[in-house]
Amino acid sequence: MTLTAPTTYKSLTEEAAIELAKTIQAFDHTAQLTCREIGDGNLNYVFQIEEAATGKRLIIKQALPYAKVIGESWPLTLKRATIEANVLKKHGEFVPSLVPAVHATDEALAITVMEDLSHLEIAREGLINGRQFPRLSQDIGEYLAQTLFHTSDYGLHPFEKKRLAAEFSNPELCKITEDLIFTDPFFDVDTNDYEPQLQAAAEAIWNDRKLQLEVAKLKKSFLTEAEALLHGDLHTGSIFAGPAETKVIDPEFGFYGPIGFDVGLFLANLIFQTITREGEERQEIVAHIEKTWEVFASSFTELWQTQSVESFKETEGYLEYVLGKVLADAVGFAGCELIRRTIGLAHVKDLDSIEDNDKRISFKKQALQTGRELILKREQTASIKDLVEILKEARI
Amino acid sequence: MTLTAPTTYKSLTEEAAIELAKTIQAFDHTAQLTCREIGDGNLNYVFQIEEAATGKRLIIKQALPYAKVIGESWPLTLKRATIEANVLKKHGEFVPSLVPAVHATDEALAITVMEDLSHLEIAREGLINGRQFPRLSQDIGEYLAQTLFHTSDYGLHPFEKKRLAAEFSNPELCKITEDLIFTDPFFDVDTNDYEPQLQAAAEAIWNDRKLQLEVAKLKKSFLTEAEALLHGDLHTGSIFAGPAETKVIDPEFGFYGPIGFDVGLFLANLIFQTITREGEERQEIVAHIEKTWEVFASSFTELWQTQSVESFKETEGYLEYVLGKVLADAVGFAGCELIRRTIGLAHVKDLDSIEDNDKRISFKKQALQTGRELILKREQTASIKDLVEILKEARI
Repeated sequence: MTLTAPTTYKSLTEEAAIELAKTIQAFDHTAQLTCREIGDGNLNYVFQIEEAATGKRLIIKQALPYAKVIGESWPLTLKRATIEANVLKKHGEFVPSLVPAVHATDEALAITVMEDLSHLEIAREGLINGRQFPRLSQDIGEYLAQTLFHTSDYGLHPFEKKRLAAEFSNPELCKITEDLIFTDPFFDVDTNDYEPQLQAAAEAIWNDRKLQLEVAKLKKSFLTEAEALLHGDLHTGSIFAGPAETKVIDPEFGFYGPIGFDVGLFLANLIFQTITREGEERQEIVAHIEKTWEVFASSFTELWQTQSVESFKETEGYLEYVLGKVLADAVGFAGCELIRRTIGLAHVKDLDSIEDNDKRISFKKQALQTGRELILKREQTASIKDLVEILKEARI
Repeated sequence: MTLTAPTTYKSLTEEAAIELAKTIQAFDHTAQLTCREIGDGNLNYVFQIEEAATGKRLIIKQALPYAKVIGESWPLTLKRATIEANVLKKHGEFVPSLVPAVHATDEALAITVMEDLSHLEIAREGLINGRQFPRLSQDIGEYLAQTLFHTSDYGLHPFEKKRLAAEFSNPELCKITEDLIFTDPFFDVDTNDYEPQLQAAAEAIWNDRKLQLEVAKLKKSFLTEAEALLHGDLHTGSIFAGPAETKVIDPEFGFYGPIGFDVGLFLANLIFQTITREGEERQEIVAHIEKTWEVFASSFTELWQTQSVESFKETEGYLEYVLGKVLADAVGFAGCELIRRTIGLAHVKDLDSIEDNDKRISFKKQALQTGRELILKREQTASIKDLVEILKEARI
C-alpha cells in the first residue's frame, strides 16, 4: 500500500505520525494513541505508536536525509527507505515469520509502516548481557538459506533475477561498506578509530602484504559477484530476538552480492562473543556458530534438491562447490568485519563496553588476530569445524 | 541525437530509410540517394544509403522484433537496439577508432544510424579465405583492454559502474548465451545440431561429469560476475577488418559480465582457424592468439598503473591475480565456445564450410577435444603459451 501521492520530503513529528497511523486505518479513527520517538537519531526516526486501551502497537520508520557520524552530517540517499521496505517484503515472501510485516510505505517521505517488535530485544544487547536465545542460530540459518537461495540464479528465472538485481542497485550504501569494511581499516586513514595501545597492531595490518592481497580479492567479490539479494548488514544489532522468536530488521544495505557476505557478517558478530566469553558461556556461542552454518547448509541443500531451476543442479560436486565457496567467502568476510569493527570507524559494543582497559585491549588484539587468520585461511576452511579451530588457535 | 518522439514500431522500407537519412541531415535534402538492404534478414534490417555523386555512405540498422532461427521465429526484445547503440557509444569513448560512429538512434523504431564500413570485410570471412589482417590482434587486444578496464571497478567510480550495470541489464540476450553456450551443448537436447558421425563424441561430452562440473562453474561466473561492460558476442563475425583498420560491431549482447568472456570468445574463434590450417598459415593465427593476449595484458597493466581508482591497485600481486583470473576464465569460456559451435545450435562457417566430409568431422572432433581440454585445464593456464601448448596437444 502506498500512502500518498508523490510529495516532497519533510520530517515527521509525533503528531504527524499519529495522524498517519489513522489515515492508513491501522487504528480506529476514534482511538486514543500515544507516540514515542525511539530511534537513535543517527540515521532514522523510529516512531512507536500505541493504543493504550488495547496495547496495539505499530512502528513508523522514517529515513533522515543525512547520517550523523562522529558529530558530522553526511548526506545519505532517502532511496534506502524504499530499498529497506522492498527487501523486507521480498525476503518476507520466503520467511514471513523471520522479518517484520510491512503495512505501508511512502517513497517521497521515506517512510515504512511496520510491525512493532518491542517485545523482543536487540540480539547484540541480549548477548552482551548473557541472555540465551535458543532459537537464534536455527532461525538465522533458515533465514539465510531461504532468502539467499530464493533470490539466486538457483531459485529464480534469470529474467526475474536480473530484474531484481537492477531494482536493488544500491550504490550509495554499498559504497559505505566498500570503504568502511574493505578499504579504510587496511590503510592508515583518518576515519580509523582505535586506542593508542592498538597502534602497533593496526600498523602490522597496514603493512601485511599477504593480508592486503586477500582483502583486495574479497573486496572484488563484494563489488562484482551478484549471487543473491543480501540483507547487506546482518550483524547482531540488526536482529531482534526473544526466547521463542527471531526477527531480522534494517536491510537498508540490501543489494545483489555474494551469499557469503550475509553469512560471514553474522558469524563475525557471534565471534566477538566467543572472544569476550569463557568456558560454558563461550561454548554456547560456538554452538550457535556451528548451528548457523549447519542449518544454512542443510536448508540450502534441501531447497537446491527440491526447487532449483539450474540445469546443472544434479551435476556431481556442483552443490558442494557452491556451498564450499559460500563458506570460504563467509570466513573471509567475517575476518574483514572483525578487523573493521576493531580499528575502523564503526565499532561494536561487545568489545567497546569492556571497562577493564587491559582486558579490552587484549580482546581487541585477539579480534584483529582472528580476523587476519580467517582471511588468510578461508580457502582452506572445508567445514565449520575448521573455522571453530581457527577461533581456538587465535585465542591469546 | 534521438530522431523522433516516442512512437510505435514499424518496419522500415528502403524509401523510408532514405527519408530518414535526409531528416537527420546526414545528406543534403536535394541529394540523390540509393538504398540497399544488405542484412542477412535473421535478426535485423541493415540499410545501406549511398549518395552516388559523392560516394558518401551511411548505415541504418533496424532490429526485427523476432529472430529467425532454423526456420522458426522467436520473439526477441527490441531493447537490444538501444543496448547495441549505447554499448557502441560507451566503448567508443575509449576506442573511437575501433567501433563504428553512431550518428543517431530511435528507441521506439529500434533504429541506429551509423558509419558505413563496407570498405572492410567481416574478419571470419577474410580468415576463412586466407586473408591476412596484420592489425587484427593488436587492435582487438587494445579494444579489450580499453573497453573492459574503463567500464570496470578499476576504472570507474562505483556509483557510475553500478549505474551502467543497471542500465545495461540485458536479460533476454543473456538468456540466449546461458542456454546456447553454457547449457544445451552439455545435455542431450533437441536444439543441438551435429553430423551423425559426431554422435559418440557428443555423448562423451554429455557423460563427462568432470567437464559438466567445470562448465557449471563457468556458467555461474557468466550469471553472477559483473566485472565490466562486455561486448557479449565478440566472435570474428562481429569484427570488420582490413589491412590497416579494425572495427568491432554488433554488441547487442552487451551486459556487465566477466572480463574473460569477451577475451575467450575472440580467442576461440581464432582457434577454429588453428584447427583448419597447417604450417605457416596456422602459425599466423597462433601469433594472433598470442598477440591478442599480450596486447590486452600490457595495455590493461598500463591503464591499471596510470588510471586505476582502486585503493588496492598497488597491492603486490593484485594486478597479477586479476589478469590471471581473466586468462583462466577466458580459456574456459573459449572451451565452451568451441564445443557449442560444433554440436550446439549455432555453428561457424570455419568448420561447416569444409567440404571434405572426413576432414570436417576430424576438425570438429578436434574442436570438441580442444574445448574440453581448455575447460579442464583453465586454472593451470598461467600464460598464453600454455594455451598454445594445449592447442598443439589436442591436434588429431
